[in-house]
Amino acid sequence: MAEGEHLAGTEEDREESAYALNPQAVARMIYAVDIDDQALLLKEMAELHPADIADLLEQINAFDRRRLIELYGSEFDGDILSELDEGLRQEVIGLLPPEVLADAVRDLESDDVVDLVEDLEDHEQEAILNALEAGDRLAVQKSLTYPEYSAGRLMQREVVMAPEHWNVGEAIDYLRDQEDLPDQFYHIILVDPRLRPVGNVTLGKLMASRREVLLKDLVEETFHTIPVTQDEADVAYAFNQYHLISAPVVDEDDRLVGVITIDDAMAVLDEEHEEDILRLGGVGDESSLSDRVMTTAKGRAVWLFVNLLTAILASVVIDQFADTIDQMVALAVLMPIVASMGGNAGTQTMTVAVRALATRDLTAQNALRVIRREVAVGALNGLLFGFLMALVAGAWFGVPMLAAVIALAMILTQICAALGGIVIPMGLSRIGIDPALASGPFVTTITDVVGFFAFLGLASMVLL
Amino acid sequence: MAEGEHLAGTEEDREESAYALNPQAVARMIYAVDIDDQALLLKEMAELHPADIADLLEQINAFDRRRLIELYGSEFDGDILSELDEGLRQEVIGLLPPEVLADAVRDLESDDVVDLVEDLEDHEQEAILNALEAGDRLAVQKSLTYPEYSAGRLMQREVVMAPEHWNVGEAIDYLRDQEDLPDQFYHIILVDPRLRPVGNVTLGKLMASRREVLLKDLVEETFHTIPVTQDEADVAYAFNQYHLISAPVVDEDDRLVGVITIDDAMAVLDEEHEEDILRLGGVGDESSLSDRVMTTAKGRAVWLFVNLLTAILASVVIDQFADTIDQMVALAVLMPIVASMGGNAGTQTMTVAVRALATRDLTAQNALRVIRREVAVGALNGLLFGFLMALVAGAWFGVPMLAAVIALAMILTQICAALGGIVIPMGLSRIGIDPALASGPFVTTITDVVGFFAFLGLASMVLL
Repeated sequence: MAEGEHLAGTEEDREESAYALNPQAVARMIYAVDIDDQALLLKEMAELHPADIADLLEQINAFDRRRLIELYGSEFDGDILSELDEGLRQEVIGLLPPEVLADAVRDLESDDVVDLVEDLEDHEQEAILNALEAGDRLAVQKSLTYPEYSAGRLMQREVVMAPEHWNVGEAIDYLRDQEDLPDQFYHIILVDPRLRPVGNVTLGKLMASRREVLLKDLVEETFHTIPVTQDEADVAYAFNQYHLISAPVVDEDDRLVGVITIDDAMAVLDEEHEEDILRLGGVGDESSLSDRVMTTAKGRAVWLFVNLLTAILASVVIDQFADTIDQMVALAVLMPIVASMGGNAGTQTMTVAVRALATRDLTAQNALRVIRREVAVGALNGLLFGFLMALVAGAWFGVPMLAAVIALAMILTQICAALGGIVIPMGLSRIGIDPALASGPFVTTITDVVGFFAFLGLASMVLL
Repeated sequence: MAEGEHLAGTEEDREESAYALNPQAVARMIYAVDIDDQALLLKEMAELHPADIADLLEQINAFDRRRLIELYGSEFDGDILSELDEGLRQEVIGLLPPEVLADAVRDLESDDVVDLVEDLEDHEQEAILNALEAGDRLAVQKSLTYPEYSAGRLMQREVVMAPEHWNVGEAIDYLRDQEDLPDQFYHIILVDPRLRPVGNVTLGKLMASRREVLLKDLVEETFHTIPVTQDEADVAYAFNQYHLISAPVVDEDDRLVGVITIDDAMAVLDEEHEEDILRLGGVGDESSLSDRVMTTAKGRAVWLFVNLLTAILASVVIDQFADTIDQMVALAVLMPIVASMGGNAGTQTMTVAVRALATRDLTAQNALRVIRREVAVGALNGLLFGFLMALVAGAWFGVPMLAAVIALAMILTQICAALGGIVIPMGLSRIGIDPALASGPFVTTITDVVGFFAFLGLASMVLL
């Protein structure tokens, strides 16, 4: 895990104290780069945490980035690479002299090295692996054999364990004798003779107990082991649900192979949320603000293309009623309102459903109740806004039957939007497709098609 | 901190092991309630973590919930209340006999009690406070004097501290002598004579060092103090950014008043994300699937009403071109495509912008660059989809000028969508309004109005 400098703010910048990087500081560092003053740059950057330096590199342009890294030179720390956006890592690694890269990587814990190299191209991966000592290299290579996004990739292999029959004194003496304890650890993991974890003892309890107390009498009530192949999203869920601080990772024989700590789980949770938000917004898996314009445009075009097909389908529906519109142009004026309100209601329900599926609040147990509830909400709001729009349309065009038609169409569309908004994410999730990714286009298709069809269809029957 | 039972799964339910609650288990518990068999219910529930029990209560209906709580009786644990959705807490607290409630609450740490009572009505708050011992009650009341959503509400007041001049041996002896250490703590906080925190020593380092080593030689490099009035979102950000495990909270004189641990920060991060996703989806601050239909419908209606105004505005724009549409009904067929594609592109950019503002990746430093980049992406995709739609419209209606008009309108709308999608969230954020909450309606208004105006306006000029 990354470690840096003292971050407590002075009186003046207390307001900014959650975050060390501010525009003035960035400007001073760019100035140091501009006048090629290494001493000034190092002084300005000395206060920054590697996470702040990574943010700095992300926020400046490619030209400044290259010059800054050159001037910063051998000070470059491995933790900066870990903190950097994946989209920029390759660029920055390419800018580092081989010996600086090697030094930087050697300081990292094995889980951070794995995180660093897993997305690199083969020759870059090799360059980094070769910089490691033999033991560390083997550990990283072993981790890379586990599936992507699995607990095996996330865990660190350095564990602190003790036989289940030990007492507090034996454990403390053992810890005192260790040369190389992990940077951060919070529990001693008790294992049976076959190396299967059987309990966690917090260091606080160890500390507060007399030497002759047995470790097994101090184990935490909540104890959760994680299969090495478990998806990292499930790992993050378990940490969040059960308030875990660290958890042992076990292989298929239930033997201890590593440990995952809450800060790694928190990072995964953060990534999962980012993925959900971006996917719901129709942005797919865009990685960062530093991506090239062409890459970003391409990624978004895929989504826009799906939307284009949906929109054309809706237009085909409208085209079926071209004669009706020709006879009453007010229909063309009003029809986007019906579709837009349906789209909004569908998005509302879909958002709630996607979130509830992610947090496992929506399950087989309460599915029917939730569907009934959403449809009821849709019907209520359909009645409300149908009534409102009837007033508006009546006053605007002075045709009472047009008011009745738009009211009825609104009610129908709102109900279908609610139904689609809940059933589509549930169905996608059931067949193993991420509902955040794929629900949007389906829901929009339903609300557009139903909206236009209901409004124009009713109008063609009633008004002409 | 919540603590429960052993959660490691057996071989058979390894698949489910991230999560203990499954439909079969729920069915068995409901069966136990149905046949009024307390022994069976307690047996089934013995394996469950309080977080799982809270989920169980959220997923069953109100009738089963009441019967289950009655049958579960005095086993009811305070941590279950902490884990429960805010929307349900009031209901469940009302179902608990006073003595069970009092017992449940007395087991909780002060930060959990604060979290529990802060949203309750006065008389319920009083009932819970009266159940506490005098010391705990004072601590909770003190915390409630801090602003809502501040570090002061989040922190626990139980801290483990030591004078900065102590050595390892003195610290260990002190810990041994303590009767009542917090359930979970990870650092000893070093304080100066005026109780100002000056550093953190991890228990691991304390454990691994000889008795005569000075504590101040063991402090962590990364040390971050949190002002007691800091917003909880900033607290969560700092934990995530700097990989903090626990951080001391200080008052306006920089004196230690409490400590925040990473699990609380993780919970806040989770809530912030939930808020962002729901607000971006136009659902405002809907609290849970257990809310009543009327409450939910009302909350969503506010949003739909804003959308209605936007949609009516767009219709007014269309109405200006009623004559044009009257002369060429193909315009009515195609116009929703232009608006819909604009809306989608605007939502994409807005989602990226809102997320980047939340993670502080989008700053004054790179704002101009990001705006230029988004507009370039919008122009590229405008060209692409303008060209595509020209082909479709040309083939569909056989009017070359109509193809040219829709292409041009698409390009214009996509560029405006990109511009609005990035500038609106940034502007809202600058003036202190949550961009996730308010960007959507503005962006939609722009894309709808520009889309219809550009398409129909160009058509009226060129085609007729």
